[in-house]
Amino acid sequence: MKAKITVTPKKAVLDPQGKTVQTALEHIGFTGIKDVRIGKYIEIELEGTDREAALKSISQASHKILSNPVIEDYSVEIE
Amino acid sequence: MKAKITVTPKKAVLDPQGKTVQTALEHIGFTGIKDVRIGKYIEIELEGTDREAALKSISQASHKILSNPVIEDYSVEIE
Repeated sequence: MKAKITVTPKKAVLDPQGKTVQTALEHIGFTGIKDVRIGKYIEIELEGTDREAALKSISQASHKILSNPVIEDYSVEIE
Repeated sequence: MKAKITVTPKKAVLDPQGKTVQTALEHIGFTGIKDVRIGKYIEIELEGTDREAALKSISQASHKILSNPVIEDYSVEIE
């Protein structure tokens, strides 16, 4: 089983890394970019087949150590 | 339109950050973790509605500046 977690800065939080990438993309000629946000992507390979339990424990892990819930949102997907 | 890009280290490349997170998770009591890989997640808000063109230009951007193709894989999704 594989858990895919994406952690992104909350909408209200400034993302200077994203702004830098946006500027870089515009500099090399990419147009029509309104906004860039940069986050983390975490892939966790799990033992077992209980999706329900996995989702619960991974959500807990995301909240506790994989993200900072004050400034970041996370989403978990099990496959 | 929104492009979602995930950049992950290639399978053959060591991921010390992932190993650290795996150890941290085990330390706080999460079990059954086989592997953790950490990558980047990039969300790009785009103008226009031409998905085909967007996919092409974002793939090019991913290859050129959003990832290091020597050690990283990327995947692009347009929605």
